[in-house]
Amino acid sequence: MFDDKTPQRTSIAQLGEFGLIDHLTKNFQIGQPSTLKGIGDDAAVLDFKDKKVVVSTDLLIEGVHFDLAYMPLKHLGYKAVIVNLSDICAMNAVPTHITVSIAVSNRFPLEALEEFYQGIALAAKQYDVDVIGGDTTSSQKGLIISITAMGEADHDDIVYRNGANDNDLLVVTGDVGAAYMGLQVLEREKQVFQVNPNAQPDLEQYTYLVERQLKPEARKDIKPLLAALGVKPTAMIDISDGLSSEIMHLCKQSGTGCNVFEEKLPLDPQLINVCEEFNIDATTVAINGGEDYELLFAIALSDFDKIKGNPNLTVIGHMTKESEGLHLITRANMKIPLKARGWNALGEEK
Amino acid sequence: MFDDKTPQRTSIAQLGEFGLIDHLTKNFQIGQPSTLKGIGDDAAVLDFKDKKVVVSTDLLIEGVHFDLAYMPLKHLGYKAVIVNLSDICAMNAVPTHITVSIAVSNRFPLEALEEFYQGIALAAKQYDVDVIGGDTTSSQKGLIISITAMGEADHDDIVYRNGANDNDLLVVTGDVGAAYMGLQVLEREKQVFQVNPNAQPDLEQYTYLVERQLKPEARKDIKPLLAALGVKPTAMIDISDGLSSEIMHLCKQSGTGCNVFEEKLPLDPQLINVCEEFNIDATTVAINGGEDYELLFAIALSDFDKIKGNPNLTVIGHMTKESEGLHLITRANMKIPLKARGWNALGEEK
Repeated sequence: MFDDKTPQRTSIAQLGEFGLIDHLTKNFQIGQPSTLKGIGDDAAVLDFKDKKVVVSTDLLIEGVHFDLAYMPLKHLGYKAVIVNLSDICAMNAVPTHITVSIAVSNRFPLEALEEFYQGIALAAKQYDVDVIGGDTTSSQKGLIISITAMGEADHDDIVYRNGANDNDLLVVTGDVGAAYMGLQVLEREKQVFQVNPNAQPDLEQYTYLVERQLKPEARKDIKPLLAALGVKPTAMIDISDGLSSEIMHLCKQSGTGCNVFEEKLPLDPQLINVCEEFNIDATTVAINGGEDYELLFAIALSDFDKIKGNPNLTVIGHMTKESEGLHLITRANMKIPLKARGWNALGEEK
Repeated sequence: MFDDKTPQRTSIAQLGEFGLIDHLTKNFQIGQPSTLKGIGDDAAVLDFKDKKVVVSTDLLIEGVHFDLAYMPLKHLGYKAVIVNLSDICAMNAVPTHITVSIAVSNRFPLEALEEFYQGIALAAKQYDVDVIGGDTTSSQKGLIISITAMGEADHDDIVYRNGANDNDLLVVTGDVGAAYMGLQVLEREKQVFQVNPNAQPDLEQYTYLVERQLKPEARKDIKPLLAALGVKPTAMIDISDGLSSEIMHLCKQSGTGCNVFEEKLPLDPQLINVCEEFNIDATTVAINGGEDYELLFAIALSDFDKIKGNPNLTVIGHMTKESEGLHLITRANMKIPLKARGWNALGEEK
């Protein structure tokens, strides 16, 4: 609805499967020294030398994970890469390679796929990852995207979910909730558009939220930042499924409880304004919203001075003994059990 | 139609996304020494030491790549793994790891997914590969499977598509065409079943063909076999997209032509009988059929004595100068241009 669709329509069937792959991937550059062979054989060949390899994969389905009514294809390609790189960053590793597979119904002309791959290529360039393979096929319905991301790290740098200790501080990068409210704004504009297709959406006061939804970034900067600060997290996780559910994962796998302080949650001023406009509680959005590609991690209390005041990092609480449970301490100093109502592609609460 | 569907139906929504992943993957064992961390964090962590890493990925869509009318889910899970391992074997590498992502519509009960994952687990066990990650989500229509396979090899063992020379011999493993005719048999039985649901298919005389279609194997045995024979192929490729199209890939990337001899094509006797019954030319099936997870490779002429008489390997022709083109020499000694009409998921000839 917001993108200016080009009138050109070249049928993908004209190119054939191999022609299509060649066409879409011909501009991808190989930049990683570890890539010995990228696209063009039965498999890519990589040489990680003495680095450890991290691998993550995600499947994105039209109508479940994205809506092309307000998601331009170039943004979608970019975001599909980011979603996967975020998981690599959450291991405190450096993203290096991705494979990109798509299935498309014949309603997509070649030009649409080109736009999608432009987004893939842009993300690959920005994040310095090589596109080393993939598959292109037809779907019975809609667009299906499957990306596998790989990264590398020294053994001692890798951070798992299960290493947090009682009394560790709980830290989140960036701010939370904006991507979810960006989606609410876009959903509202879609309703308006359906009633009046001539309405021009005015998104000026929502730019940050919409950008967080449509063009998120992965926190590739956190690994070097933490290294520069001399801090190694004890446990780390990506919070794209929702802050509260990921706090629960971190605590469960580390065998800890936690106290999270409502007043410490990092909220963008635009989020607060728009939550008021939508009459939604900003704290609920912040802890349950999801799609913020930020990192949540635990650090030793003794490292507090090293991160204090860094604009990228916010201490939102601390770990406790497992027996104490998981709690949110409200502004009114009420202690309430932390509940996960994270985003769930299977459509129900956990 | 052939499988005995269990009447149990547990809704996958009851489990939730994380519960579902936990449930389906809880029995997967880690066997590879290179797996430092499998399922359960943001990403798996692997240590390949001084081995090179090969990576391949495939996307399988219900209604495009498989038909659940005659493909039992356990077989489908098994085959989905094989499809990917075959690409690893085609690099002369050893498969080590897979990620498995699925999207399912809500018509699939939990028991169906369990059956599918039993097939995944069986293949993983048989081929000694670790399932190290994946994603489980809902689809708008049908079953979607995305698998990424990884393998390892010493640098000097890896075989690409582009190393064949003029005068090299062209060798294929196993036999060709059977998987395609197995599909024709199953399609015919499906038609019969649709007319008369009480008809019991008698597949006794088609067992080999049907097995090649429903439960193919990847040629993990070829790497050690060639090593034992003291032969390193100059170029290699998986022929699951059809023998002729893959011969063309091998020649194009190696900069050669070739002569392939019709009388040398390895055909199973059951294939010949069934092609007669179906009134289809067996040579056409053999070179264009596809879905035979066999390997095609080139070797130096001087290595002929080493492979001669091996029941797994058949010399089907030889490379020529590129300028001589690609030809099939018929039984009647006619030289006709080799054409690719390989399997193409986008539905047209290349």
